[in-house]
Order: sequence, then structure tokens, then C-alpha cells
Amino acid sequence: MSSEFDLIRSHFSRKVRHTDLGVGDDAALLHLRPGMQLVVSTDMLVAGTHFLPDTEPEALGWKTAAVNISDIAAMAAEPRWITLALSLPTSDDKWVAAFAEGFAACCASFGVDWIGGDTTRGPLNLCATVFGEVLHGQAVLRSGAKPGDDIWISGTPGLAALGLQHLLEKIVLPDEARAACLSALYKPQPRVALGLALRGVASAMLDVSDGLLGDLGHILEQSHCGAQLEEAALPVHMLVAASHAAREALLNGGDDYELLFCADQTQRPFIEKLAKKLALPLSRIGKIIAGKGTFILNPAGLVEPLLPNSYDHFRSSRP
Amino acid sequence: MSSEFDLIRSHFSRKVRHTDLGVGDDAALLHLRPGMQLVVSTDMLVAGTHFLPDTEPEALGWKTAAVNISDIAAMAAEPRWITLALSLPTSDDKWVAAFAEGFAACCASFGVDWIGGDTTRGPLNLCATVFGEVLHGQAVLRSGAKPGDDIWISGTPGLAALGLQHLLEKIVLPDEARAACLSALYKPQPRVALGLALRGVASAMLDVSDGLLGDLGHILEQSHCGAQLEEAALPVHMLVAASHAAREALLNGGDDYELLFCADQTQRPFIEKLAKKLALPLSRIGKIIAGKGTFILNPAGLVEPLLPNSYDHFRSSRP
Repeated sequence: MSSEFDLIRSHFSRKVRHTDLGVGDDAALLHLRPGMQLVVSTDMLVAGTHFLPDTEPEALGWKTAAVNISDIAAMAAEPRWITLALSLPTSDDKWVAAFAEGFAACCASFGVDWIGGDTTRGPLNLCATVFGEVLHGQAVLRSGAKPGDDIWISGTPGLAALGLQHLLEKIVLPDEARAACLSALYKPQPRVALGLALRGVASAMLDVSDGLLGDLGHILEQSHCGAQLEEAALPVHMLVAASHAAREALLNGGDDYELLFCADQTQRPFIEKLAKKLALPLSRIGKIIAGKGTFILNPAGLVEPLLPNSYDHFRSSRP
Repeated sequence: MSSEFDLIRSHFSRKVRHTDLGVGDDAALLHLRPGMQLVVSTDMLVAGTHFLPDTEPEALGWKTAAVNISDIAAMAAEPRWITLALSLPTSDDKWVAAFAEGFAACCASFGVDWIGGDTTRGPLNLCATVFGEVLHGQAVLRSGAKPGDDIWISGTPGLAALGLQHLLEKIVLPDEARAACLSALYKPQPRVALGLALRGVASAMLDVSDGLLGDLGHILEQSHCGAQLEEAALPVHMLVAASHAAREALLNGGDDYELLFCADQTQRPFIEKLAKKLALPLSRIGKIIAGKGTFILNPAGLVEPLLPNSYDHFRSSRP
């Protein structure tokens, strides 16, 4: 059995590229580039609440970093540093090595230095805190949407939730769809390049972690307005199209970490070009309206209210 | 039962004083003062490992902030911001309110803005990440001790460990000692003013969280030297003096969060004056020597090796 300090030494001390002092002292040291604001977010993942207890450690490591980095992307900022605190029931060297590999791989993919953390014993719990930089005043908040703005979503959200339902044997996915859905669940891709490209373009933005409708509600609340979505514009993935479960997962499933953003209508050409440049679908799914609430325009021309059914850690049960 | 968003709204959204954007978006925004480095540390506290499950929530809130702030003090930096992620088995409003009060009180005592966090469901786990500022290059690391330096410790460490042993009914403390020991356990005081005053004075420093001997070992390892302590100089608190348990707690008990530091002998007058100014005992307990290992000079003039018996999360069992 490895000791705590052995664990830290062998798996958690990684090379840093833009950090003054990394793992090994009471704290890490870093500096911001001139004119930059620091962007800080923290996310905790708990076995049984955020992931199935038998999730592969490498996938879990990737995901722990990815969901945190996604919050920096959602501010239109550049992810730069991350810390990881984790509690483990036992010190299983092989598990820790694989977890650390996945975590470090995601960090490296997005240019993030892993600068420190804490290792302790307890029920499996993973808590990362991530730091980004953004030019002073250029972060995109949730509060800037205005009536008339388009509402956009990246990618094809819902796949991760379908993957989870497949694992829980609530639905059965055909092979090709299953592969896409499990990849979305296990290896989410924070939309860092998209977020950065939307500085000065998006009026409001967040990453969808608890479900599109519920998270859209946060923008509406903080921007004091409502939304009308268009059924026909929802980007259901072709592999799972036309199922009720897919629509439900798209609207209320979490865990895809796509970016939901609003932008003035004059930005359409820029955003359409950006989708091609990034090879990432960007779908205009509705518009911001005055008033309150979210509505949907169905293909028959009927406008109906649409209530979120997204995840709340103290109300729902998931997975 | 409160929902996650209600919990955050009612207890975790506090006024910030030097933060650009606090709780409520995907991330918080802040900026450093000119010429400053950011100092980052994270600590995770788990029920049953770091604290007894029935610990009063207000005390636990204080302690969660304090142990983190202590790491910033140990770098000779000024604590400025903190995030808190926590997982809770149920959403007990009263518990959360009391916990948040204790956490916020500690933050306020040390001028720290509580800027964000995450709330989730799971076994009780508290993870804070704390941020400080220090003038570029002025942080005191673990690696700067040199042979001949004095070794100093603040306060009278060991009280917290004795308090825990009393709670576990391993020892019985008389009333007055019990009060002092439980206060040390429940309401540790990060030595922020001391840490700041030691910039440019201490050659190496850390906060004692796992035990004086074990933590001294980190300085020795990183500074490539050894230490000789002096039995007669160990600051055993007068309320628990002359017991074997008190000496053991002083040398190997964690959780007091006193600062252990080294300094050139020429700094003695400054440090003695500082102790008076801060009304905090600062005891010169030994010296750094060339070579490896820790030794102790006993009152009979005998020098013996001294092995740490401090806490390792994957080797010992505590509490």
C-alpha cells in the first residue's frame, strides 16, 4: 500500500509550463499576464451522484478535469491552471495511476498546468478547482442576454444522458449510437476554442451541465427575460433521432458540457462561419423574448410553455 | 427540503469586498494587485478522517476555512479569496446555515472573500481552495533552510490532538485544559499576521497539520539538511505539562496549524520582539544541521535520533 506522500510523488507531481511553483509546498505560486483577470471555478464529483462507482479511472480522470475546464470555456476565458483534491477509500496504486493519466491528459489537451492538490482517505470524491485568464472585462456572463438575441447551442447535447441510461439498462442503444453516447459521457470535450472565439460576440453564455432547459433558466433569470425555442431547430443527433428519449435527453440531460449562448442577430454570419472553422455544429435554437418563462414553437405552429426537468442534487436521483 | 439552488442562494452568496464577480455565474472573476503573485492551496476534509461526524457544524465551518487559510499564512502571503465545494448526505437547512456561518466568520476574520463553490449530494466532504497574494518572489518556501538556522514554532502545539483524544475517551483532561484543547481543535487560528511578518526573515516555513516532526521532515527533505531539537525548549502548554501524552501530541499531533519556521540566528531579536507584539509564544526549539535526520538533545545532554510518528492518511487510523 502506498503512503499519501508516495502517491503524490509518483502520480501527482507533473511538469508545469507556466507556473512559478507547482506541487510540493504549502501552496502553489503563479502570476497573471498583464491586463488579465483571474477566472475561478470549482466542481466536486461524487461516486454514485455524478458517476457510476465502477467507471474506468482513466475516463473519470479525464472527466474531472473536463467538467471544470468547461466552466472556464463558458466564461470565454483561457484555462491555465488546476488543482485536484481527492478522497479515496483505499490507496490502490493502479487505480490512482490510471486516474492521474486521464486527468493529466485532459489538462495537457487544453494547456492547463496541474499545480497541486490534496489526497486523503474517505468515500470516493473528486474536487478540482480550475483557473483561467481573460482580458479584463471580456468575460461573457449569464446576465447579458437581451430580447431579440438568438439562442445557440453547440454540438448535439443529450448523448451523455442517453449513454448513462443505456448503462443503467433503461434504454438499449444500437452499437453505433452507443459508442457515440458513451464517448460523450466518458470523454466530454470542453468547448474552449468556441468560448474564446465568442468573446465580444456572445451576450450571455454558460455550459450545459444540468440540462439545456434548466441551465437556460439561469441565463433568463440573470438577464431578466424569457425564451422561445423552436422544436424543428433542436439538434438531435442523427444516430438517435426521432426518439422520445433523445428529445428528453437533449432538453433535460446534463453532462454534455456544450455551450449555450445568446448573441445579437447581426452575429449570425460570424457564428455560422465559426461552426465551419471549428468543425462543430452550432445550432440556432430560438430567441430571447421579453417577459418570463421558456416556450417552444412546435412544427404545427403552436407555441407552448416548456418546463425544465433538469437535475437538482437534492431533489432528483441520478444516476 | 431545500433545493441545491436554494441552498446556494440562502447561505452561500455572501458580500464580497475585493472581488470582481462572486457567486452566481460559471466562475468567479478577480484581479491581482500590481506586482503580486497568486498563492493557491486546496484542502479536503472528510467526516471520520479529519473530524468526528458529530462535530458542531459552526465549528466545522470555521475549521474548513481555517486549515486552508493556514496554508497561505505558511507562504508568508495574504489570504484574499476562497471557494468551497461540499457534498452533503441530505440538505439539512439548519446544519448548512450553521456551517456557512462558521465558514463565513473565519473568512471575515482574515479578510477573505468567499467567491464561489459547488454543492452536491454525497458522503459529508468539504473541499476549500484558498487564494492569497504575495509580492513577487517574497513567498517563504520549504526549501530555504540552511545549517545553523534556528528552528522556531509558534504557540503550543499538541492541544488539538489532546482535545481529540479526550473526545475519543483515550485520556481524561481536567476542565481548564479540556477547554483549551477543544478550542484548539475546533477553532484553530491561522497565523496570518505571523506569516506576513516573517517575509524576508524566515528562510523556510510551513504550517504544522500532520505533526511537528513529520512536517519538519518536509523542510529537511526540501532543504537537504537535518535538525537537532532541544527537549527543554519544547513549548508544552502549562495546563498539560509533564505528561507523556502532551509531549507525544506536541511532537506528532496534527491539527494545531501553528507555523514551523527556520531563520538565521541574527533574526533572534526581531523574532523575540515579534512574539511580544503579536502576543503569541514563539519558541526556538532547535537548529538546522548538516546531514540527514532529526535528533533531540535531552536534559541530560544526550543526543538521540527522533523518528516522526505523524499522520499518513493511508497508513494510520485517525480520529
